[in-house]
Amino acid sequence: MIVLKLGGSVITEKDRAETLDGEALGRAADAVAATLEAAGQGPGGSEDETADLVIVHGGGSFGHHNASEHGVTTTDGTHDAAAALEIHGAMKTLNQFVLTRLLERDVQAVPVHPFSAGHRDETAALEFPTGQVETLLAEGFVPVLHGDMIAHAGSGATVVSGDELVVELARDLEADRIGLCSTVPGVLDDADDVIDRISKYKDVESVLGASDATDVTGGMAAKVRALLELEAEASIFGLEALDSFLRGEPAGTTIE
Amino acid sequence: MIVLKLGGSVITEKDRAETLDGEALGRAADAVAATLEAAGQGPGGSEDETADLVIVHGGGSFGHHNASEHGVTTTDGTHDAAAALEIHGAMKTLNQFVLTRLLERDVQAVPVHPFSAGHRDETAALEFPTGQVETLLAEGFVPVLHGDMIAHAGSGATVVSGDELVVELARDLEADRIGLCSTVPGVLDDADDVIDRISKYKDVESVLGASDATDVTGGMAAKVRALLELEAEASIFGLEALDSFLRGEPAGTTIE
Repeated sequence: MIVLKLGGSVITEKDRAETLDGEALGRAADAVAATLEAAGQGPGGSEDETADLVIVHGGGSFGHHNASEHGVTTTDGTHDAAAALEIHGAMKTLNQFVLTRLLERDVQAVPVHPFSAGHRDETAALEFPTGQVETLLAEGFVPVLHGDMIAHAGSGATVVSGDELVVELARDLEADRIGLCSTVPGVLDDADDVIDRISKYKDVESVLGASDATDVTGGMAAKVRALLELEAEASIFGLEALDSFLRGEPAGTTIE
Repeated sequence: MIVLKLGGSVITEKDRAETLDGEALGRAADAVAATLEAAGQGPGGSEDETADLVIVHGGGSFGHHNASEHGVTTTDGTHDAAAALEIHGAMKTLNQFVLTRLLERDVQAVPVHPFSAGHRDETAALEFPTGQVETLLAEGFVPVLHGDMIAHAGSGATVVSGDELVVELARDLEADRIGLCSTVPGVLDDADDVIDRISKYKDVESVLGASDATDVTGGMAAKVRALLELEAEASIFGLEALDSFLRGEPAGTTIE
Protein backbone atom coordinates (compact mmCIF):
# COMPACT_ATOMS: atom_id res chain seq x y z
CA MET A 1 0.00 0.00 0.00
CA ILE A 2 1.33 3.38 -1.05
CA VAL A 3 0.38 6.80 0.33
CA LEU A 4 1.24 9.45 -2.24
CA LYS A 5 1.25 13.15 -1.43
CA LEU A 6 0.98 15.59 -4.31
CA GLY A 7 2.33 18.87 -3.00
CA GLY A 8 0.04 21.86 -3.34
CA SER A 9 2.90 23.82 -4.92
CA VAL A 10 3.35 21.08 -7.52
CA ILE A 11 -0.23 21.04 -8.84
CA THR A 12 -1.10 24.74 -8.46
CA GLU A 13 0.51 28.06 -9.30
CA LYS A 14 1.29 29.01 -5.75
CA ASP A 15 1.60 32.76 -6.40
CA ARG A 16 -1.76 33.23 -8.16
CA ALA A 17 -4.91 32.66 -6.08
CA GLU A 18 -6.89 29.56 -7.06
CA THR A 19 -4.86 28.80 -10.18
CA LEU A 20 -4.22 25.23 -11.22
CA ASP A 21 -0.93 24.09 -12.77
CA GLY A 22 -2.84 21.96 -15.24
CA GLU A 23 0.23 20.64 -17.01
CA ALA A 24 1.89 19.44 -13.81
CA LEU A 25 -1.35 17.86 -12.57
CA GLY A 26 -1.77 16.15 -15.93
CA ARG A 27 1.75 14.69 -15.69
CA ALA A 28 1.08 13.44 -12.16
CA ALA A 29 -2.21 11.86 -13.25
CA ASP A 30 -0.43 10.22 -16.21
CA ALA A 31 2.10 8.63 -13.86
CA VAL A 32 -0.62 7.34 -11.51
CA ALA A 33 -2.70 5.95 -14.40
CA ALA A 34 0.32 4.22 -15.96
CA THR A 35 1.25 2.57 -12.67
CA LEU A 36 -2.26 1.31 -11.97
CA GLU A 37 -2.66 0.05 -15.53
CA ALA A 38 0.64 -1.83 -15.24
CA ALA A 39 -0.59 -3.30 -11.93
CA GLY A 40 -3.63 -4.74 -13.69
CA GLN A 41 -6.08 -2.02 -12.81
CA GLY A 42 -7.47 0.54 -15.16
CA PRO A 43 -9.07 -0.01 -18.56
CA GLY A 44 -7.21 -3.18 -19.51
CA GLY A 45 -7.03 -4.77 -16.10
CA SER A 46 -9.07 -7.08 -13.96
CA GLU A 47 -11.20 -5.78 -11.13
CA ASP A 48 -9.83 -8.41 -8.79
CA GLU A 49 -6.42 -6.82 -8.55
CA THR A 50 -6.81 -3.77 -6.40
CA ALA A 51 -4.67 -0.68 -6.54
CA ASP A 52 -3.93 0.09 -2.92
CA LEU A 53 -2.93 3.66 -3.58
CA VAL A 54 -4.12 6.55 -1.43
CA ILE A 55 -3.53 10.07 -2.73
CA VAL A 56 -3.37 13.17 -0.55
CA HIS A 57 -2.95 16.59 -2.11
CA GLY A 58 -2.05 19.91 -0.56
CA GLY A 59 -3.78 23.22 -1.05
CA GLY A 60 -1.24 25.37 -2.85
CA SER A 61 -2.90 28.54 -4.08
CA PHE A 62 -6.39 27.20 -3.30
CA GLY A 63 -6.43 26.70 0.45
CA HIS A 64 -3.62 28.94 1.64
CA HIS A 65 -4.91 32.29 0.35
CA ASN A 66 -8.36 31.73 1.88
CA ALA A 67 -6.96 30.47 5.15
CA SER A 68 -4.57 33.38 5.64
CA GLU A 69 -7.34 35.84 4.73
CA HIS A 70 -9.36 34.50 7.65
CA GLY A 71 -6.36 34.13 9.98
CA VAL A 72 -6.92 30.39 10.22
CA THR A 73 -3.98 28.01 10.71
CA THR A 74 -3.43 24.53 12.13
CA THR A 75 -3.57 26.09 15.61
CA ASP A 76 -5.69 29.25 15.21
CA GLY A 77 -9.28 28.30 14.49
CA THR A 78 -12.54 29.92 13.55
CA HIS A 79 -16.09 29.60 14.84
CA ASP A 80 -17.40 31.32 11.71
CA ALA A 81 -19.04 28.68 9.51
CA ALA A 82 -18.88 30.94 6.44
CA ALA A 83 -15.10 31.33 6.79
CA ALA A 84 -14.64 27.59 7.34
CA LEU A 85 -16.78 26.87 4.28
CA GLU A 86 -14.85 29.29 2.09
CA ILE A 87 -11.57 27.50 2.85
CA HIS A 88 -13.20 24.05 2.67
CA GLY A 89 -14.90 25.00 -0.61
CA ALA A 90 -11.64 26.13 -2.21
CA MET A 91 -10.05 22.81 -1.28
CA LYS A 92 -13.01 20.89 -2.71
CA THR A 93 -12.69 22.82 -5.96
CA LEU A 94 -9.04 21.78 -6.23
CA ASN A 95 -9.97 18.21 -5.25
CA GLN A 96 -12.54 18.15 -8.07
CA PHE A 97 -9.81 19.14 -10.56
CA VAL A 98 -7.60 16.32 -9.29
CA LEU A 99 -10.43 13.78 -9.44
CA THR A 100 -11.41 14.84 -12.96
CA ARG A 101 -7.86 14.44 -14.28
CA LEU A 102 -7.63 10.98 -12.72
CA LEU A 103 -11.09 9.86 -13.93
CA GLU A 104 -10.22 10.99 -17.47
CA ARG A 105 -7.38 8.45 -17.30
CA ASP A 106 -9.64 5.67 -15.98
CA VAL A 107 -8.30 5.86 -12.44
CA GLN A 108 -11.24 5.02 -10.13
CA ALA A 109 -10.65 8.06 -7.94
CA VAL A 110 -13.14 9.10 -5.26
CA PRO A 111 -12.97 11.99 -2.78
CA VAL A 112 -12.57 11.74 1.00
CA HIS A 113 -12.99 15.22 2.49
CA PRO A 114 -11.20 15.37 5.85
CA PHE A 115 -13.56 18.03 7.30
CA SER A 116 -16.34 15.42 7.02
CA ALA A 117 -14.29 12.63 8.54
CA GLY A 118 -11.99 13.71 11.35
CA HIS A 119 -11.47 16.09 14.23
CA ARG A 120 -8.84 17.31 16.68
CA ASP A 121 -9.27 16.69 20.38
CA GLU A 122 -8.50 19.18 23.20
CA THR A 123 -4.76 18.47 22.87
CA ALA A 124 -4.93 19.25 19.11
CA ALA A 125 -4.22 15.58 18.33
CA LEU A 126 -5.76 14.47 15.04
CA GLU A 127 -8.42 11.75 15.25
CA PHE A 128 -9.04 10.35 11.81
CA PRO A 129 -11.08 7.14 11.48
CA THR A 130 -9.98 5.26 8.34
CA GLY A 131 -12.65 2.57 7.87
CA GLN A 132 -14.00 4.39 4.82
CA VAL A 133 -10.53 4.61 3.22
CA GLU A 134 -9.82 0.91 3.89
CA THR A 135 -13.17 -0.13 2.41
CA LEU A 136 -12.70 2.06 -0.66
CA LEU A 137 -9.22 0.57 -1.20
CA ALA A 138 -10.49 -2.99 -0.83
CA GLU A 139 -13.18 -2.23 -3.43
CA GLY A 140 -10.59 -1.03 -5.95
CA PHE A 141 -11.11 2.71 -5.59
CA VAL A 142 -8.32 5.27 -5.21
CA PRO A 143 -9.28 7.55 -2.28
CA VAL A 144 -8.14 11.15 -2.79
CA LEU A 145 -7.83 13.26 0.37
CA HIS A 146 -6.55 16.80 0.79
CA GLY A 147 -5.51 19.47 3.23
CA ASP A 148 -8.73 20.87 4.67
CA MET A 149 -10.52 22.41 7.62
CA ILE A 150 -11.14 20.17 10.62
CA ALA A 151 -13.31 20.40 13.74
CA HIS A 152 -11.04 21.25 16.68
CA ALA A 153 -12.19 20.88 20.29
CA GLY A 154 -11.91 24.29 21.96
CA SER A 155 -10.84 26.13 18.78
CA GLY A 156 -13.78 25.79 16.40
CA ALA A 157 -12.27 24.61 13.15
CA THR A 158 -8.58 24.71 12.23
CA VAL A 159 -6.52 23.65 9.22
CA VAL A 160 -5.34 20.08 8.78
CA SER A 161 -2.38 19.86 6.42
CA GLY A 162 -1.85 17.26 3.74
CA ASP A 163 1.39 16.27 5.47
CA GLU A 164 -0.42 15.53 8.73
CA LEU A 165 -2.92 13.36 6.88
CA VAL A 166 -0.12 11.46 5.12
CA VAL A 167 1.50 10.59 8.44
CA GLU A 168 -1.84 9.60 10.01
CA LEU A 169 -2.93 7.45 7.06
CA ALA A 170 0.48 5.78 6.67
CA ARG A 171 0.42 4.81 10.34
CA ASP A 172 -3.23 3.67 10.49
CA LEU A 173 -3.23 1.80 7.20
CA GLU A 174 0.28 0.36 7.74
CA ALA A 175 1.51 1.74 4.42
CA ASP A 176 4.47 0.02 2.79
CA ARG A 177 5.76 3.17 1.14
CA ILE A 178 5.15 6.89 1.34
CA GLY A 179 5.92 9.31 -1.47
CA LEU A 180 6.04 13.09 -1.16
CA CYS A 181 6.00 14.60 -4.62
CA SER A 182 7.42 18.06 -4.12
CA THR A 183 8.75 21.07 -6.07
CA VAL A 184 12.33 20.07 -5.21
CA PRO A 185 14.06 16.87 -6.37
CA GLY A 186 14.68 15.80 -2.75
CA VAL A 187 16.26 17.04 0.46
CA LEU A 188 19.21 19.18 -0.60
CA ASP A 189 22.60 19.45 1.09
CA ASP A 190 24.73 22.60 1.41
CA ALA A 191 25.85 22.26 -2.20
CA ASP A 192 22.22 21.86 -3.38
CA ASP A 193 22.78 18.20 -4.21
CA VAL A 194 20.06 15.68 -3.37
CA ILE A 195 20.81 13.68 -0.20
CA ASP A 196 20.20 10.01 -1.09
CA ARG A 197 19.28 8.62 2.31
CA ILE A 198 18.43 10.00 5.75
CA SER A 199 18.17 7.67 8.73
CA LYS A 200 18.52 10.11 11.67
CA TYR A 201 17.56 13.75 11.96
CA LYS A 202 21.07 14.51 13.21
CA ASP A 203 22.38 13.68 9.69
CA VAL A 204 20.59 16.68 8.23
CA GLU A 205 20.35 19.07 11.17
CA SER A 206 23.18 21.16 9.73
CA VAL A 207 21.27 21.79 6.49
CA LEU A 208 17.66 21.80 7.73
CA GLY A 209 18.17 23.46 11.09
CA ALA A 210 16.98 22.35 14.51
CA SER A 211 13.28 22.80 13.72
CA ASP A 212 10.82 22.47 16.55
CA ALA A 213 7.44 20.79 16.44
CA THR A 214 5.45 23.99 15.82
CA ASP A 215 6.19 23.92 12.09
CA VAL A 216 3.18 21.76 11.22
CA THR A 217 2.11 22.55 7.66
CA GLY A 218 5.45 23.89 6.69
CA GLY A 219 8.96 23.25 5.73
CA MET A 220 11.16 20.35 4.87
CA ALA A 221 12.50 19.93 8.41
CA ALA A 222 9.02 19.11 9.75
CA LYS A 223 8.38 16.67 6.90
CA VAL A 224 11.65 14.82 7.48
CA ARG A 225 11.13 14.62 11.24
CA ALA A 226 7.57 13.28 10.87
CA LEU A 227 8.62 10.71 8.25
CA LEU A 228 11.56 9.47 10.36
CA GLU A 229 9.07 8.47 13.07
CA LEU A 230 7.14 6.15 10.75
CA GLU A 231 7.70 2.45 10.11
CA ALA A 232 7.27 2.80 6.35
CA GLU A 233 10.02 3.95 4.04
CA ALA A 234 9.39 7.42 2.67
CA SER A 235 10.71 9.29 -0.35
CA ILE A 236 10.78 12.99 -1.14
CA PHE A 237 11.19 13.70 -4.85
CA GLY A 238 10.21 16.00 -7.72
CA LEU A 239 7.49 15.47 -10.31
CA GLU A 240 10.06 14.10 -12.80
CA ALA A 241 10.70 11.14 -10.45
CA LEU A 242 7.05 10.28 -9.68
CA ASP A 243 7.06 7.49 -12.30
CA SER A 244 10.16 5.93 -10.75
CA PHE A 245 8.75 6.12 -7.24
CA LEU A 246 5.48 4.49 -8.25
CA ARG A 247 7.40 1.69 -10.03
CA GLY A 248 9.26 1.02 -6.78
CA GLU A 249 12.58 2.48 -7.96
CA PRO A 250 14.70 4.89 -5.95
CA ALA A 251 13.48 8.49 -6.20
CA GLY A 252 14.91 11.63 -4.63
CA THR A 253 15.72 11.33 -0.95
CA THR A 254 14.81 8.12 0.89
CA ILE A 255 13.96 8.46 4.57
CA GLU A 256 14.30 5.21 6.50
CA MET B 1 -29.76 17.30 21.39
CA ILE B 2 -32.06 17.19 18.38
CA VAL B 3 -31.59 15.28 15.13
CA LEU B 4 -33.77 16.87 12.46
CA LYS B 5 -34.39 15.22 9.12
CA LEU B 6 -35.56 17.41 6.27
CA GLY B 7 -37.20 15.06 3.77
CA GLY B 8 -35.88 15.20 0.22
CA SER B 9 -39.45 15.56 -1.05
CA VAL B 10 -39.97 18.56 1.22
CA ILE B 11 -37.03 20.65 0.00
CA THR B 12 -36.97 19.62 -3.68
CA GLU B 13 -39.51 19.24 -6.48
CA LYS B 14 -39.42 15.47 -6.54
CA ASP B 15 -40.77 15.13 -10.09
CA ARG B 16 -38.26 17.45 -11.80
CA ALA B 17 -34.61 16.37 -11.87
CA GLU B 18 -32.33 18.49 -9.68
CA THR B 19 -34.94 21.13 -8.87
CA LEU B 20 -35.00 22.82 -5.50
CA ASP B 21 -38.23 23.78 -3.73
CA GLY B 22 -36.68 27.05 -2.71
CA GLU B 23 -39.72 28.33 -0.86
CA ALA B 24 -40.06 25.22 1.29
CA LEU B 25 -36.32 25.19 2.04
CA GLY B 26 -36.51 28.86 2.97
CA ARG B 27 -39.36 28.16 5.41
CA ALA B 28 -37.42 25.29 6.98
CA ALA B 29 -34.31 27.47 7.32
CA ASP B 30 -36.43 30.24 8.90
CA ALA B 31 -37.73 27.80 11.52
CA VAL B 32 -34.22 26.54 12.34
CA ALA B 33 -32.80 30.06 12.55
CA ALA B 34 -35.63 31.24 14.80
CA THR B 35 -35.16 28.32 17.19
CA LEU B 36 -31.40 28.79 17.46
CA GLU B 37 -31.77 32.54 17.95
CA ALA B 38 -34.30 31.95 20.73
CA ALA B 39 -31.85 29.48 22.30
CA GLY B 40 -29.20 32.19 22.50
CA GLN B 41 -27.28 31.28 19.38
CA GLY B 42 -27.24 33.19 16.16
CA PRO B 43 -26.68 36.91 15.66
CA GLY B 44 -27.87 38.10 19.07
CA GLY B 45 -26.63 35.19 21.15
CA SER B 46 -23.57 34.23 23.08
CA GLU B 47 -21.05 31.78 21.69
CA ASP B 48 -21.06 29.85 24.94
CA GLU B 49 -24.55 28.49 24.46
CA THR B 50 -24.32 25.82 21.85
CA ALA B 51 -27.08 24.74 19.53
CA ASP B 52 -26.95 20.95 19.64
CA LEU B 53 -28.91 20.50 16.47
CA VAL B 54 -27.86 18.06 13.76
CA ILE B 55 -29.62 18.31 10.40
CA VAL B 56 -29.86 15.46 7.88
CA HIS B 57 -31.52 16.00 4.52
CA GLY B 58 -32.69 13.55 1.92
CA GLY B 59 -31.98 13.61 -1.80
CA GLY B 60 -35.37 14.20 -3.37
CA SER B 61 -34.94 14.98 -7.06
CA PHE B 62 -31.15 15.39 -6.66
CA GLY B 63 -29.91 11.98 -5.57
CA HIS B 64 -32.70 9.68 -6.67
CA HIS B 65 -32.66 10.39 -10.41
CA ASN B 66 -28.91 9.89 -10.65
CA ALA B 67 -28.95 6.77 -8.50
CA SER B 68 -31.70 5.05 -10.47
CA GLU B 69 -29.98 5.98 -13.74
CA HIS B 70 -26.93 4.03 -12.58
CA GLY B 71 -28.96 1.23 -10.98
CA VAL B 72 -27.48 2.03 -7.56
CA THR B 73 -29.51 1.44 -4.39
CA THR B 74 -28.80 0.80 -0.71
CA THR B 75 -28.02 -2.82 -1.64
CA ASP B 76 -26.91 -2.71 -5.31
CA GLY B 77 -23.57 -0.96 -5.56
CA THR B 78 -21.20 0.31 -8.21
CA HIS B 79 -17.44 0.01 -8.73
CA ASP B 80 -17.54 2.85 -11.24
CA ALA B 81 -16.04 5.93 -9.61
CA ALA B 82 -17.61 8.25 -12.21
CA ALA B 83 -21.10 6.94 -11.42
CA ALA B 84 -20.49 7.21 -7.66
CA LEU B 85 -19.23 10.77 -8.12
CA GLU B 86 -22.23 11.80 -10.20
CA ILE B 87 -24.63 10.74 -7.43
CA HIS B 88 -22.36 12.13 -4.69
CA GLY B 89 -21.95 15.38 -6.64
CA ALA B 90 -25.71 15.85 -7.02
CA MET B 91 -26.13 15.40 -3.25
CA LYS B 92 -23.33 17.90 -2.56
CA THR B 93 -25.05 20.42 -4.82
CA LEU B 94 -28.27 20.08 -2.83
CA ASN B 95 -26.29 20.23 0.43
CA GLN B 96 -24.70 23.49 -0.72
CA PHE B 97 -28.18 24.98 -1.29
CA VAL B 98 -29.22 23.92 2.23
CA LEU B 99 -26.03 25.34 3.77
CA THR B 100 -26.40 28.63 1.90
CA ARG B 101 -29.98 29.15 3.09
CA LEU B 102 -28.92 28.44 6.67
CA LEU B 103 -25.81 30.66 6.53
CA GLU B 104 -27.90 33.53 5.11
CA ARG B 105 -29.89 33.30 8.37
CA ASP B 106 -26.75 33.25 10.53
CA VAL B 107 -27.02 29.55 11.35
CA GLN B 108 -23.43 28.27 11.68
CA ALA B 109 -24.06 25.35 9.35
CA VAL B 110 -21.21 23.15 8.09
CA PRO B 111 -21.33 20.08 5.82
CA VAL B 112 -20.54 16.50 6.82
CA HIS B 113 -20.54 14.35 3.67
CA PRO B 114 -21.27 10.72 4.62
CA PHE B 115 -19.29 9.28 1.67
CA SER B 116 -16.17 10.81 3.26
CA ALA B 117 -16.97 9.57 6.75
CA GLY B 118 -18.55 6.12 6.88
CA HIS B 119 -18.75 2.72 5.27
CA ARG B 120 -20.77 -0.49 5.29
CA ASP B 121 -19.16 -3.74 6.36
CA GLU B 122 -19.64 -7.17 4.70
CA THR B 123 -23.03 -7.56 6.42
CA ALA B 124 -24.14 -4.17 5.01
CA ALA B 125 -24.17 -2.72 8.53
CA LEU B 126 -23.45 1.01 8.58
CA GLU B 127 -20.28 2.09 10.39
CA PHE B 128 -20.38 5.82 10.96
CA PRO B 129 -17.82 7.39 13.34
CA THR B 130 -19.31 10.53 14.91
CA GLY B 131 -16.35 12.23 16.58
CA GLN B 132 -16.39 14.99 13.95
CA VAL B 133 -20.13 15.63 14.50
CA GLU B 134 -19.72 15.71 18.29
CA THR B 135 -16.81 18.14 18.06
CA LEU B 136 -18.65 20.40 15.60
CA LEU B 137 -21.67 20.46 17.94
CA ALA B 138 -19.55 21.25 20.98
CA GLU B 139 -17.98 24.15 19.06
CA GLY B 140 -21.41 25.62 18.26
CA PHE B 141 -21.69 24.52 14.63
CA VAL B 142 -24.77 22.90 13.11
CA PRO B 143 -23.57 19.83 11.18
CA VAL B 144 -25.62 19.18 8.02
CA LEU B 145 -25.50 15.62 6.66
CA HIS B 146 -27.40 14.07 3.77
CA GLY B 147 -28.26 10.87 1.96
CA ASP B 148 -25.19 9.95 -0.05
CA MET B 149 -23.02 7.23 -1.55
CA ILE B 150 -21.05 5.08 0.89
CA ALA B 151 -18.19 2.58 0.57
CA HIS B 152 -19.64 -0.92 0.93
CA ALA B 153 -17.44 -3.97 1.55
CA GLY B 154 -18.02 -6.40 -1.30
CA SER B 155 -20.37 -4.11 -3.27
CA GLY B 156 -18.24 -1.10 -4.20
CA ALA B 157 -20.31 1.89 -3.19
CA THR B 158 -24.03 1.87 -2.37
CA VAL B 159 -26.56 4.48 -1.29
CA VAL B 160 -26.95 5.47 2.37
CA SER B 161 -30.33 7.07 3.04
CA GLY B 162 -30.99 10.08 5.19
CA ASP B 163 -33.26 7.94 7.36
CA GLU B 164 -30.45 5.45 8.07
CA LEU B 165 -28.18 8.32 9.08
CA VAL B 166 -30.83 9.78 11.40
CA VAL B 167 -31.17 6.47 13.25
CA GLU B 168 -27.39 6.00 13.46
CA LEU B 169 -26.74 9.56 14.67
CA ALA B 170 -29.60 9.53 17.17
CA ARG B 171 -28.26 6.31 18.71
CA ASP B 172 -24.57 7.30 18.72
CA LEU B 173 -25.09 10.84 19.94
CA GLU B 174 -27.84 9.86 22.39
CA ALA B 175 -30.25 12.37 20.90
CA ASP B 176 -33.06 13.62 23.12
CA ARG B 177 -35.49 14.14 20.26
CA ILE B 178 -35.75 13.20 16.61
CA GLY B 179 -37.83 15.08 14.08
CA LEU B 180 -38.74 13.87 10.60
CA CYS B 181 -40.06 16.77 8.59
CA SER B 182 -42.05 15.14 5.83
CA THR B 183 -44.56 15.94 3.05
CA VAL B 184 -47.39 14.54 5.17
CA PRO B 185 -48.58 15.99 8.52
CA GLY B 186 -47.85 12.69 10.31
CA VAL B 187 -48.68 9.01 10.14
CA LEU B 188 -52.23 8.80 8.82
CA ASP B 189 -54.95 6.35 9.84
CA ASP B 190 -57.58 4.80 7.55
CA ALA B 191 -59.59 8.02 7.58
CA ASP B 192 -56.47 10.07 6.70
CA ASP B 193 -56.35 11.61 10.17
CA VAL B 194 -53.00 12.05 11.91
CA ILE B 195 -52.31 9.38 14.53
CA ASP B 196 -51.14 11.22 17.67
CA ARG B 197 -48.96 8.57 19.27
CA ILE B 198 -47.51 5.21 18.30
CA SER B 199 -45.86 3.02 20.90
CA LYS B 200 -45.89 -0.41 19.21
CA TYR B 201 -45.78 -1.36 15.56
CA LYS B 202 -48.87 -3.53 16.08
CA ASP B 203 -50.90 -0.31 16.65
CA VAL B 204 -50.37 0.77 13.04
CA GLU B 205 -49.87 -2.53 11.22
CA SER B 206 -53.38 -2.34 9.82
CA VAL B 207 -52.71 1.02 8.14
CA LEU B 208 -48.99 0.70 7.30
CA GLY B 209 -48.90 -2.99 6.43
CA ALA B 210 -46.54 -5.66 7.72
CA SER B 211 -43.44 -4.16 6.09
CA ASP B 212 -40.25 -6.18 6.19
CA ALA B 213 -36.76 -4.86 6.78
CA THR B 214 -35.84 -4.56 3.07
CA ASP B 215 -37.59 -1.20 2.71
CA VAL B 216 -34.55 0.84 3.69
CA THR B 217 -34.80 4.25 2.03
CA GLY B 218 -38.46 4.04 1.58
CA GLY B 219 -41.85 4.26 3.05
CA MET B 220 -43.44 5.24 6.28
CA ALA B 221 -43.56 1.68 7.65
CA ALA B 222 -39.76 1.44 7.65
CA LYS B 223 -39.42 4.86 9.29
CA VAL B 224 -41.85 3.99 12.07
CA ARG B 225 -40.23 0.61 12.74
CA ALA B 226 -36.73 2.13 12.90
CA LEU B 227 -37.87 4.95 15.19
CA LEU B 228 -39.68 2.59 17.56
CA GLU B 229 -36.35 0.86 18.23
CA LEU B 230 -34.70 4.06 19.46
CA GLU B 231 -34.53 5.41 23.00
CA ALA B 232 -35.30 8.96 21.93
CA GLU B 233 -38.79 10.23 21.26
CA ALA B 234 -39.41 10.84 17.57
CA SER B 235 -41.94 12.93 15.69
CA ILE B 236 -43.11 12.77 12.09
CA PHE B 237 -44.73 15.98 10.92
CA GLY B 238 -45.19 18.35 7.99
CA LEU B 239 -43.30 21.57 7.26
CA GLU B 240 -46.08 23.64 8.86
CA ALA B 241 -45.30 21.99 12.23
CA LEU B 242 -41.48 22.32 12.12
CA ASP B 243 -41.59 25.45 14.31
CA SER B 244 -43.67 23.65 16.94
CA PHE B 245 -41.39 20.62 16.93
CA LEU B 246 -38.26 22.73 17.35
CA ARG B 247 -39.89 24.63 20.23
CA GLY B 248 -40.53 21.30 21.96
CA GLU B 249 -44.28 21.32 21.36
CA PRO B 250 -46.27 18.33 20.04
CA ALA B 251 -46.03 17.99 16.25
CA GLY B 252 -47.63 15.41 13.97
CA THR B 253 -47.26 11.83 15.13
CA THR B 254 -45.10 11.09 18.17
CA ILE B 255 -43.34 7.72 18.25
CA GLU B 256 -42.37 6.62 21.73
